[in-house]
Amino acid sequence: MKIIVDCYGGDYCPTEAVAGAVAALDKLPGLSVVLTGDEKELKALLQGYKYDAGRLEVAHASEVITNSDKPVKAVMRKKDSSTVVGLKLLAEGGADGMVSSANTGALLVGGSLILGLSQGVTRAALCPVLPNAKGTYTILADGGANIDCRPEQLVEFAVMGSVYMREMFKITAPSSGLLNNGAEPEKGNELTRNAYKLLTEAQGINFVGNIECRDLLTGAVDVVVADGFSGNMGIKASEGMGSVLFGLIKEGIMQGGLRAKLGYVLLKPVLKKVKNKMSSDDVGGAVFLGMKKVLVKTHGSGKAQAFMNAVIKAHAMAESGVPEKIEDGLRYI
Amino acid sequence: MKIIVDCYGGDYCPTEAVAGAVAALDKLPGLSVVLTGDEKELKALLQGYKYDAGRLEVAHASEVITNSDKPVKAVMRKKDSSTVVGLKLLAEGGADGMVSSANTGALLVGGSLILGLSQGVTRAALCPVLPNAKGTYTILADGGANIDCRPEQLVEFAVMGSVYMREMFKITAPSSGLLNNGAEPEKGNELTRNAYKLLTEAQGINFVGNIECRDLLTGAVDVVVADGFSGNMGIKASEGMGSVLFGLIKEGIMQGGLRAKLGYVLLKPVLKKVKNKMSSDDVGGAVFLGMKKVLVKTHGSGKAQAFMNAVIKAHAMAESGVPEKIEDGLRYI
Repeated sequence: MKIIVDCYGGDYCPTEAVAGAVAALDKLPGLSVVLTGDEKELKALLQGYKYDAGRLEVAHASEVITNSDKPVKAVMRKKDSSTVVGLKLLAEGGADGMVSSANTGALLVGGSLILGLSQGVTRAALCPVLPNAKGTYTILADGGANIDCRPEQLVEFAVMGSVYMREMFKITAPSSGLLNNGAEPEKGNELTRNAYKLLTEAQGINFVGNIECRDLLTGAVDVVVADGFSGNMGIKASEGMGSVLFGLIKEGIMQGGLRAKLGYVLLKPVLKKVKNKMSSDDVGGAVFLGMKKVLVKTHGSGKAQAFMNAVIKAHAMAESGVPEKIEDGLRYI
Repeated sequence: MKIIVDCYGGDYCPTEAVAGAVAALDKLPGLSVVLTGDEKELKALLQGYKYDAGRLEVAHASEVITNSDKPVKAVMRKKDSSTVVGLKLLAEGGADGMVSSANTGALLVGGSLILGLSQGVTRAALCPVLPNAKGTYTILADGGANIDCRPEQLVEFAVMGSVYMREMFKITAPSSGLLNNGAEPEKGNELTRNAYKLLTEAQGINFVGNIECRDLLTGAVDVVVADGFSGNMGIKASEGMGSVLFGLIKEGIMQGGLRAKLGYVLLKPVLKKVKNKMSSDDVGGAVFLGMKKVLVKTHGSGKAQAFMNAVIKAHAMAESGVPEKIEDGLRYI
């Protein structure tokens, strides 16, 4: 399996992207990588690492898509960007998947146009794979790509998320729940009320009903189905609460004198473990579902570990044939 | 000032409602309370307390609105419920405000119908007053009452929330932000994109633009404006993350051996302080804004402290004339 690593566009690029790609080579003997971006800079960085040169190529790209670029414009005009060069290589069959930390909108537009959408998909979804309190994972489909959705699209998201969880986590019949403002079937806004009906009728998914946003991270279901706007609300609010709580604990320790500081030293392993458990760095990024090829997004602030995990994830998705299986799944709704 | 306390409908009612009402009498010498509900039961409970009998009345009501009651039906049919009896007394001028932990939908319907909406208000909003990381408060308008909203209604919510923060927290020009999926003006779904335009043009508010859900609890703005569906997402996701994190910390301590347990004992005051700071018990519940009279909702699981704080809040709102000032505010948008 060959995975492209877009080495530009993230906050710590290209250094951390290169480090992550090399680390992934170390982990997976069957993996090859293609780094896209400035060849000179990338080759200079690579001199700092030991790696199997037969499994690493560089595909030169002279431009970078930045976060302030408008997605459509960026994809159309920056044809020699590390992102577009990578997507084209992937579309042409030069690799099996791609990882990028660049502008999410550009990846969504570029991926949908250049890679194409799978049969039966009207819109690709960006799906964070979230660690949950049970110690397993929950996929959120959609986590922010599609802001205004139609009810039928939520059914597509449910199928795509379920296929992902089945293939990647070997869950026979992944449960899916509709993110809503209450558990009862009659709850919801116009979109969710209509989607609820369609989801109960859909074939090939294990729809268990509405779930409230407080269950986003409890592991109540394997797949949380949402329009991108609501999905974004849920994930950002959770992130916000997490950083507020850890911030306040830190502040309390600083102000709490010797007793609190000693307590912190003793409790540090527990707090660190909790923080890591709920951190997205460990997860390997969000995945685009609904495109003809595997595309994994790492956080813009992702470091080497995030890139490495994303490459491992893209590799596993390509091996399982997630895009093809999504096409199969959508045939039967 | 006279505040009605609906003593039924919550999980720990009537015991905790009575305890909270008596505690509020203790705190505020100028306060009188009217308890609504089963007279015999309430009087029996009151025998366990010392209080100024001249400042406490009981208004008998033989029925209770439960959480499984349909709101409209409940308000129409359970005319002798503690909730409807209280709302009628308030509407007729027999008190200055009311506190209830009963069925939120019934309070919204009952309050809107029996108390009436203020001039210029098309829909009342249910607004949680949330503790934030800065140690101050943020009001969320709307937090879940109005699931499908029009853009103009979000402007009403902005005005109502701003009046509340100005009157209750003496903030001269409370800042308001629109809950959205990104900070840039062009971000959003159909509703928020249209509301953004109207909010920038509205008079009498200090609109600072979009805010993301991760800033719901950081104190970035005084008033977070949202449709009830998105508001619900934000608040429930935050609650969920809070309980997941504290749950994981507890689990980690249990499994962490002597070291972790000792650390916990030392760090307990800090953790407890953080938990209390971000807990809604301390806040005194959510407030309905847009009704002609003051109506404060305590959490269904609220205990004595929550009731006491809600009564104190209702008292302050009535003293400041929040409903009248909302009418004034809405005259100038």
